[in-house]
Amino acid sequence: MERYSGKSVGFACVTLQKGFWKEMQELVRDVTVDAVYDRFEETGRFEALKCEWKEGMPFKPHIFWDSDITKWIEGAAYYLKKRRDSKLEQRIDDLVDRMEKSQEKDGYLNSYFTTVEPEARFTRRTDHELYCAGHLIEGALAYYEATGKRKLLEIALRYTDLIDRVFRVEHSASFDTPGHEEIELALVKLYEFTGEERYKKLAEFFIDQRGRSEKDQPYEFADMKNMQSHLPVREQKTAEGHAVRALYLYCGMADLALLNQEEALAQSCETLFENVTAKRMHVTGGVGSTHLGESFTFDYDLPEDTTYNETCASIALAMFCRRMWLIDADGKYADCAERALYNTVLSGISLSGDRFFYENPIAAVPEKTSFYESRPEGIRQHMPILERVKVFQCSCCPPNLVRTMGSIGDYMYSVSGDTIYAHCYMDGDAVIPMGDGEIVLHQRTDYPYSGEIALQTETDGTYAIAMRVPAWCTSYTLKVNGVAWEYPAEKGYILLRRTWSSGDEAVLVLDMAVEQVEANPRVPNLCGHVAITRGPLVFCAEGIDNPGVGLNDVRIGRDAEFACREEEINGRRLPVLRTQGKRRCDFSELYRPRRDETEQVSLTLIPYLAWANRGITEMKVWFLSEE
Amino acid sequence: MERYSGKSVGFACVTLQKGFWKEMQELVRDVTVDAVYDRFEETGRFEALKCEWKEGMPFKPHIFWDSDITKWIEGAAYYLKKRRDSKLEQRIDDLVDRMEKSQEKDGYLNSYFTTVEPEARFTRRTDHELYCAGHLIEGALAYYEATGKRKLLEIALRYTDLIDRVFRVEHSASFDTPGHEEIELALVKLYEFTGEERYKKLAEFFIDQRGRSEKDQPYEFADMKNMQSHLPVREQKTAEGHAVRALYLYCGMADLALLNQEEALAQSCETLFENVTAKRMHVTGGVGSTHLGESFTFDYDLPEDTTYNETCASIALAMFCRRMWLIDADGKYADCAERALYNTVLSGISLSGDRFFYENPIAAVPEKTSFYESRPEGIRQHMPILERVKVFQCSCCPPNLVRTMGSIGDYMYSVSGDTIYAHCYMDGDAVIPMGDGEIVLHQRTDYPYSGEIALQTETDGTYAIAMRVPAWCTSYTLKVNGVAWEYPAEKGYILLRRTWSSGDEAVLVLDMAVEQVEANPRVPNLCGHVAITRGPLVFCAEGIDNPGVGLNDVRIGRDAEFACREEEINGRRLPVLRTQGKRRCDFSELYRPRRDETEQVSLTLIPYLAWANRGITEMKVWFLSEE
Repeated sequence: MERYSGKSVGFACVTLQKGFWKEMQELVRDVTVDAVYDRFEETGRFEALKCEWKEGMPFKPHIFWDSDITKWIEGAAYYLKKRRDSKLEQRIDDLVDRMEKSQEKDGYLNSYFTTVEPEARFTRRTDHELYCAGHLIEGALAYYEATGKRKLLEIALRYTDLIDRVFRVEHSASFDTPGHEEIELALVKLYEFTGEERYKKLAEFFIDQRGRSEKDQPYEFADMKNMQSHLPVREQKTAEGHAVRALYLYCGMADLALLNQEEALAQSCETLFENVTAKRMHVTGGVGSTHLGESFTFDYDLPEDTTYNETCASIALAMFCRRMWLIDADGKYADCAERALYNTVLSGISLSGDRFFYENPIAAVPEKTSFYESRPEGIRQHMPILERVKVFQCSCCPPNLVRTMGSIGDYMYSVSGDTIYAHCYMDGDAVIPMGDGEIVLHQRTDYPYSGEIALQTETDGTYAIAMRVPAWCTSYTLKVNGVAWEYPAEKGYILLRRTWSSGDEAVLVLDMAVEQVEANPRVPNLCGHVAITRGPLVFCAEGIDNPGVGLNDVRIGRDAEFACREEEINGRRLPVLRTQGKRRCDFSELYRPRRDETEQVSLTLIPYLAWANRGITEMKVWFLSEE
Repeated sequence: MERYSGKSVGFACVTLQKGFWKEMQELVRDVTVDAVYDRFEETGRFEALKCEWKEGMPFKPHIFWDSDITKWIEGAAYYLKKRRDSKLEQRIDDLVDRMEKSQEKDGYLNSYFTTVEPEARFTRRTDHELYCAGHLIEGALAYYEATGKRKLLEIALRYTDLIDRVFRVEHSASFDTPGHEEIELALVKLYEFTGEERYKKLAEFFIDQRGRSEKDQPYEFADMKNMQSHLPVREQKTAEGHAVRALYLYCGMADLALLNQEEALAQSCETLFENVTAKRMHVTGGVGSTHLGESFTFDYDLPEDTTYNETCASIALAMFCRRMWLIDADGKYADCAERALYNTVLSGISLSGDRFFYENPIAAVPEKTSFYESRPEGIRQHMPILERVKVFQCSCCPPNLVRTMGSIGDYMYSVSGDTIYAHCYMDGDAVIPMGDGEIVLHQRTDYPYSGEIALQTETDGTYAIAMRVPAWCTSYTLKVNGVAWEYPAEKGYILLRRTWSSGDEAVLVLDMAVEQVEANPRVPNLCGHVAITRGPLVFCAEGIDNPGVGLNDVRIGRDAEFACREEEINGRRLPVLRTQGKRRCDFSELYRPRRDETEQVSLTLIPYLAWANRGITEMKVWFLSEE
């Protein structure tokens, strides 16, 4: 495709019909939307929105609570877009009424600052004010688009206009750019919705000033790198600092690069994408190798049981990929989005839909976790929790999951000129705008359980459909109306350019073989190890399925055979793998001369997304490899 | 031997003549003794001893500075015992004069409390008062025994009498047992020197009250486990908390178990020894797996680049072993002492003798260290330093090395009845008390460079010499006067019971083959790995000797051949190993389907004790194993 020619095809154009993502979406609609609402209610987040808190009262507002609420509204709105629900709307309308009452005369809206520190507004770079404002904008747009109700949108517009004046026009804030990015991408959305240039200009201001402003300072527990302010964005070559902030920033950068067709910004995005995906990303699409600053660390630093891998960071990574494929339709972006979505993002939510992980380690060592949990403050090592919980003090991830699942259809298609790009495969029907018209496409698939994807068009005409062949796929067949299509994939897509008649069908069959994956030799702890994948799913072994096996010592042979069978885990249909490995015969000494005495052992693997749903148990993604 | 019948043969009975330990001892005498003195002088430790510090002055006394000084005096005294030195004695005498002046009327002596918080004396369990007192006792005894000068001894006796009255008789202190153990073993030494029962009773009081006293409380950054106060000592089964404190405690426990022939206490010591050595000790004899609380963690937790492995902890482990072999002459104790002394203890001091490590990790990842060093406070992960320094704020390890090297002859022999146990082999001459007489033994060896140990007696008579066959040794020969001695080793010793004539010689030749060692399958990160040893030395590979090799990916085959050659590293003669391994061919992707493409690579290994003497460079002890 021509660079910068991509156009998003939003979830609103798509109706999922069945299968993996439809089931996920329904779970979130039926369970998670209410579960998150109930926890937020219990924890006083909605009460705080009234801005009636006084010292001594419970539920002191927190600097990022507003964002939890508007992100939940955004997610709920995506479901309302597909199916109106008066009870849910009533809940949102009540929250909107509270926000309307709490909004200050000049448009300012932040329950923490208004209530707790009114004198400090726009003075503390890192206190999430603009981050909250960004989520307000996104929530307002989503709710308006779902229901046509304007109140929240008007609240958001009033507040955004204040921010624009204070930051871009008057420069009267104590800082120039937010300590936690998010508003940049929200402003681009708002610009695209309203057509108001000043919103784009404000986004550009925040992007361009970053790393240049003399007003922008770090704060305790952080540095300029932690907030991506160590360099102007066009000079940033490596992913640094807080992973969610970094990736939200890259989203905003990609949005502006696309809008302005700006090569320098686009190249920065590409360089940063390469750094993340070629040097700083787990095989599960998890990013942010340390809880310290919730941040990226350095190249090839991919620890297993202590890595942070925040759910929100992988959501943000997928969001970034979706923007990048509009700049350049390279399959690597959808490969990465899938890696994140199918593994770390879904690890963030329990199979029951009402419990969440913030951190998604790729190994669990229960003895280590319980040891450090038993230690006193000050000599306690932070370890990721090993069971999902209903809500966090900082509960960004649960509503982020709600909005991601509600809009998962965003990841199916994009359009460039007369080409429809089919990125991530999901069973669903789409009405895709192209030029002045539209193309109606039906996608039938049981992906990722099986690798067959059938795309049937209802629309006559000459246009192209580009079907993605994932990088993990080493063998596939493609037929159009039953006839083999011989052209190879380029940059991850097979371009089916032809004259289509209604009822024509392209059937892509991806070989879903189980693969053993090795990591780059520069990753110290992954040398001599393999991870097991099938399609986009990364697998793991849990102690509960492998009692007494000793997962750390299991070695998987080069020619190991894997039996794959669909089974139910906590009521969810999932592929389960079984294989034979070797492990050393047990012995009691701590050290002894090498003997290499091994015995065969059976190994059961489940998709990583399903780990930690059956109690606290050992878990491992990377296994010793044996020749 | 009969249980509890062991008698220590101190370094005073032994004169090292040449070889590995003689060279170490001379280096410390010629370089380290003065280097530590000079650093302590520069950092105001000696000035503090005057107790003239006032708020606003430099060199504010620190709670453990007194112990640094008396530990250095103890170490210096061990050299004076062998060779008087008026300049060195003058230095010590000046320090003793300061202590005499600073000692309070009632005997109290602590430069921190006297100067900074006089009202707080004996109120803060963890502020190292009794730890400092213990080192004062040890230093005073050593200096008296070396020079016959009584002043420091009398200072120590006055202070000890005060402590005895306050703690044991009046119970007027705010706590019963020290937060940092050390005084227990010092009191046993003092009892053995003076014959005064009350010193033994005070040691017993501290040992017996531990884990029972209601007055003993933890403090911020610690808990009862961190100070070994979670259980009465006879009920402690696992090594918990601060590793140096734990092992000093176990020394005191072993001392009392031996003195009182108390089975319950001895069994606790044995159980704790087993827990340490079978589950919580690195192959280098390093203990204390985390810097958090400088402590033991849990079974089989042996991280490589983050482990603490304090030099003092391994010294204390060797001290504990030396006590245990008096209770029960089992070779496992000398095996463990050697493991600690030849590896972690010596890693604590540079080849130049004037720089020190406090922490002794078993892997170095310079990128990781420099990354976290660059992070701001609060989001910085503690990492061990990768270059030794001249002095620490908490500088317990350097003087501990001085005293350990000065008294290394302690580890050669013990006596039980008519049997001389030869534990750790060093070239030297000994006059060993036995019954009413003495046995004169000459030990000629180039151990650990070679495995031949010749023991020649000068003393006619019927007695036994028990020569240790180290656990690492799988093959050996033993001849007495040229005739093979066929009796096997029992519990690690070959008992040569016979009628000896002056000039008789036993020659033990230990096969010093290079061994590959595997760790228990329960140690997660060491599965699939081997360490390389030769005799008591553990080897490591450093980046500087293996440029571009990528040590993390090197795999060592089961049948790898190792060439061993003595070479000089920074002027020190050391065995260096060379072998061939395999590594994966390099590739650029972060993840790819497993290919197992390997190439041969040369690997150079040096003794672990010599690591980090040639700049900051990657280092590894455990290597991937290949069948």
